[in-house]
Amino acid sequence: MSKAETRAGKIAKDQLQSIIERIERLLEEKKAIADDVAAVYAEAKGNGYDTKALKAIVRMRAQDPNERAEFETILETYMQALGML
Amino acid sequence: MSKAETRAGKIAKDQLQSIIERIERLLEEKKAIADDVAAVYAEAKGNGYDTKALKAIVRMRAQDPNERAEFETILETYMQALGML
Amino acid sequence: MSKAETRAGKIAKDQLQSIIERIERLLEEKKAIADDVAAVYAEAKGNGYDTKALKAIVRMRAQDPNERAEFETILETYMQALGML
Amino acid sequence: MSKAETRAGKIAKDQLQSIIERIERLLEEKKAIADDVAAVYAEAKGNGYDTKALKAIVRMRAQDPNERAEFETILETYMQALGML
Repeated sequence: MSKAETRAGKIAKDQLQSIIERIERLLEEKKAIADDVAAVYAEAKGNGYDTKALKAIVRMRAQDPNERAEFETILETYMQALGML
Repeated sequence: MSKAETRAGKIAKDQLQSIIERIERLLEEKKAIADDVAAVYAEAKGNGYDTKALKAIVRMRAQDPNERAEFETILETYMQALGML
Repeated sequence: MSKAETRAGKIAKDQLQSIIERIERLLEEKKAIADDVAAVYAEAKGNGYDTKALKAIVRMRAQDPNERAEFETILETYMQALGML
Repeated sequence: MSKAETRAGKIAKDQLQSIIERIERLLEEKKAIADDVAAVYAEAKGNGYDTKALKAIVRMRAQDPNERAEFETILETYMQALGML
């Protein structure tokens, strides 16, 4: 390899290393937050809350209220028709 | 390799090949059924049904009715407390 | 409700019931096949095979061979650059 | 409701509200980091990197090196036996 080629390879190598390390740092931070979420749910469970229902609440609040209302209406129509209500 | 070793290798190879092929056949069947499910949902959508609500119905019917009723009660208590109802 | 309305409602109700039951039957068949796949892996494990490696084999065989070869080449270039080989 | 009951209900309501809001804040942070990860991959792709291979590298580096080496050996044995190498 010529000096120029070695240098080009070196730059690419450093760039690749930097990309991978940035991703790894971000994934570590993401993991730490996911652990925090799990800890809040565990604490809530310890205080008598139902974590499945808490998760359902969080999901519902993330939805558009109008879309959720429309969905609930359709769902109830189907449940009525099927004798589930 | 001795003849015995060759033979042992042959048997293991055939066994491995057979395992992989059995799994592949089953996965093909599973994929065909998943395609059928998707086709039923697509047909229902074409007939004006809301597929998201249909999926919710299927999920609910797969649950234990008592557990589902209990869960709904807890969920409503939380929604009430949070002013979501 | 008029007789006509009752009848229209009855047809819709039957159609909805039929859709849900077709999906439930298909999902049962799909579950049975998924159980069969799990049983083959469990049997293979009992015969000394590494199930994680078997799954990797199945995944690889489902890929296009040329695309897989190309991917492996890129992967090795990166691993080389990062001193992983 | 007595004053005491109202107060107990108020505390529970505040606690529930607080749990949900803590989770929502954490999920927002988690989403922001996931977006950052996606942005690094998008930038890398723009610089000519193969994102699928980058993801494979990240996964491999997260594994225990000895376990990974052992897995690769088993995988190659199977691939050899199946005529994939």
